[in-house]
Amino acid sequence: MTENTPKENKRIVSGMRPTGPLHLGHYFGVLKNWINLQETHQCYFFVADWHALTTEYADPRRIKGFVPELVKDWVAGGLDPEKCVIFQQSQVKEHAELHLLLSMLTPVSWLERCPTYKDQLTELAAKDLTTYGFLGYPVLMASDILLYKSGFVPVGQDQLPHLELTREIARRANHLYGNFFPEPQALLTPDAKLAGLDGRKMSKSYGNAIGLSEDPATMKKKVMGMLTCAKRARLADPGDPKECNLFPYHELLTDPARLPEIVEGCTTATWGCGDCKKLLVESMNAFLEPIRDRRQAFDKDPNLVGDLLASGNDRARQVAARNMDALRKKLNFNF
Amino acid sequence: MTENTPKENKRIVSGMRPTGPLHLGHYFGVLKNWINLQETHQCYFFVADWHALTTEYADPRRIKGFVPELVKDWVAGGLDPEKCVIFQQSQVKEHAELHLLLSMLTPVSWLERCPTYKDQLTELAAKDLTTYGFLGYPVLMASDILLYKSGFVPVGQDQLPHLELTREIARRANHLYGNFFPEPQALLTPDAKLAGLDGRKMSKSYGNAIGLSEDPATMKKKVMGMLTCAKRARLADPGDPKECNLFPYHELLTDPARLPEIVEGCTTATWGCGDCKKLLVESMNAFLEPIRDRRQAFDKDPNLVGDLLASGNDRARQVAARNMDALRKKLNFNF
Ligand code: SF4
Ligand code: SF4
Repeated sequence: MTENTPKENKRIVSGMRPTGPLHLGHYFGVLKNWINLQETHQCYFFVADWHALTTEYADPRRIKGFVPELVKDWVAGGLDPEKCVIFQQSQVKEHAELHLLLSMLTPVSWLERCPTYKDQLTELAAKDLTTYGFLGYPVLMASDILLYKSGFVPVGQDQLPHLELTREIARRANHLYGNFFPEPQALLTPDAKLAGLDGRKMSKSYGNAIGLSEDPATMKKKVMGMLTCAKRARLADPGDPKECNLFPYHELLTDPARLPEIVEGCTTATWGCGDCKKLLVESMNAFLEPIRDRRQAFDKDPNLVGDLLASGNDRARQVAARNMDALRKKLNFNF
Repeated sequence: MTENTPKENKRIVSGMRPTGPLHLGHYFGVLKNWINLQETHQCYFFVADWHALTTEYADPRRIKGFVPELVKDWVAGGLDPEKCVIFQQSQVKEHAELHLLLSMLTPVSWLERCPTYKDQLTELAAKDLTTYGFLGYPVLMASDILLYKSGFVPVGQDQLPHLELTREIARRANHLYGNFFPEPQALLTPDAKLAGLDGRKMSKSYGNAIGLSEDPATMKKKVMGMLTCAKRARLADPGDPKECNLFPYHELLTDPARLPEIVEGCTTATWGCGDCKKLLVESMNAFLEPIRDRRQAFDKDPNLVGDLLASGNDRARQVAARNMDALRKKLNFNF
C-alpha cells in the first residue's frame, strides 16, 4: 500500500545522458519505446546531465552543447512536449537534495555488490571511475525515479539490477519513515537493439552509425558502402538475409509487406545487393524525412529548445518540490 | 595561487550538529573560539542538519526541534548575528548540489582510508553507519567549506584528517577545472576540553554536564554534589587541585586573581571543599547570567529565532549561489 493514486502509479521516469547526437540505435533501442509510452503514461523524460558528469567529470566541457541537441533529437524523433514532460536533471535541484537524503540510508554494500559496478569499472578503466560518485550512481538513479514517485521505469534487461536497487532503497525508506514511495515496476523494453552498419554495436566512435539528423547524401553513401552477406560474392550467388548486416534495417524501416520478396530475391539470387541497398536508402529517407522536418523547426527558432526545456523544467520542479516537501514532512525534516 | 581576494581568504566556515542543547563542554571547546573569531574573520556558522541526518537517519524526527535551540544557545552564548552569518545547512540547497558535484571527482579510496571512518564505524556500531552517506561524510564537509571558498577552518587536532581530505578535494578540482577553490587552512582550536562534573568526558548522556541554559537551582545542586580531590576525606586533610574535578572549572570561570588563594587554601587545608563549591556556584552564575538574559529575548519573541535564521540563510545563499554559478561556468556546466 502506498499513498499514490492510480494515476500517479502510471507515471514513468526515464533519462538519457547528453553525450552526443542520437543515432538509429538509440532510436530503436530507447526513443521509439518512449514515443509509445507518452501515449499511455504520464511521462517524465530527462536529460541526465548529472549522470554524464559521473563519467565525464575529468573533461565536462562538452556536455553543455549536447544538452539542447539531445532535446532536439527527442522531439524531432517524435516526443511531443504536449504529451510528456521533457526536462534537464541538474535544473531541478531536488535531484541533488534527494540524492543526499537517500545516500544516508543506502548501505555501501548494496552498491558494491551491484553487478554492473565492477563490470563498468573494468570496461571504462581508462576513465578512472573509482570515485565516490560512480559508486553511488544507483543512488542518483533511485533519486531520479523516486523523486517523481514513479510507478514504472522502462528498462532493458541489463538495467534490472539498478532498478532492483531503487526498489530496495524505496523499501528501506518506507520501512524507516512510513510508506511513501511506490516501488517502481520494470517496464521491460523489448530488446530491439539495432546493430551498426558493420554488424558491431552501433556507436558513433566506431563510425558505423546513422544519425537521426544524418543528411541524405551521407546516409546514402553509408548505406551503399555496407558489407552484405558474405555468400553473395557474385550477383549470381544466393545470399542469406539472416547473415546480412542490411536486412535488420529492412525489418525496421521497410514496408513489412515487401520483406518476403527481399528474402525470396536474396536467397534465389534474383535481386542484387545494389537494389536492396537502394530500397533501404528509400525506406530510410522516408523514415528520416519527418525527423529532419521537425528538426528544422529548431533551426528556424533558436529560442525554441530553450523555451521548451524551461517549461519542462518548471513542470518537473513542481512535482519534485511537492514530493520533496512531503517527504521532508514525513521525516520531520521540513523547516 | 587562487582567485580569492585577501578578504575572502579570511572567511571561515564551521558547523555544529543539532543533536541537543549545548553544555559548558561545547562552550569552552568550540563556541568560545567562534565568539572570538567573529571579531577577526568573516564567519559563516551553520546548523549542520544534513550531517545530523548522517547518523540519525533511522530516527530523524528529533532533529527539527534541536535546530532553533542550537541557534538560541549560540546567540545566548555570545555569537552576534550582526558580526557573523548564522544559517542552516539544508536550507541552502547548494550544499547538496556541490556535494553531488564533488562526489564525482572524489576517489572512494580517499574516503575509505580516512582514519576517522573506521573508528567511527566501530564506535557507533549500534547505529549501522555502513551507509553510502556516512562513507561520504568528508565529501559533504568539503562541500560545506568550499561552497563559501573558505580560507580557514577552525578544527581540533582530531579533525585534521577530514580537513586534509577537503584540501585534497579542492586540489583535485583545481587541477581538473583550473584554480577555483582556495585550499582551506586549519585554524587549530586550542584544546580547551572541559571534563564533566565527574571527570569523564562531558556529555548529556552521562548526566555530568551543565547546560548553557541550566537554571540556577539545578546548577547549584550539580556543583554541590561534585566529587572533589580524594585526598580531602576530612576538612583537615590537604588536597591537590590538580586531582580535583572542580578546579578546572575555577580555572575557566573564576577570577584568575583568586586562583592562587584556592590552591593555597586547598593544599594547606585552610579552605574547605564546601566553600570552594560555593565560590564556583557564584562564578558560574556570573558566567551563565548574561547567557540566560540573552536567551530570554528568544522566549519573549517567538519569531526571533526564525527571523534570525531566515536572514542568515539568505545571506549564506547569496554567497553559495554566486560561488556555485562561478564553478558551473568553470566546468561549462552552467545552463
Ligand atoms: S540482397 Fe539484400 S538481404 Fe540479400 S545479401 Fe544483399 S543486401 Fe543482404
Ligand atoms: S578545596 Fe577546592 S580545589 Fe581543593 S579539593 Fe576541594 S573542591 Fe577541589
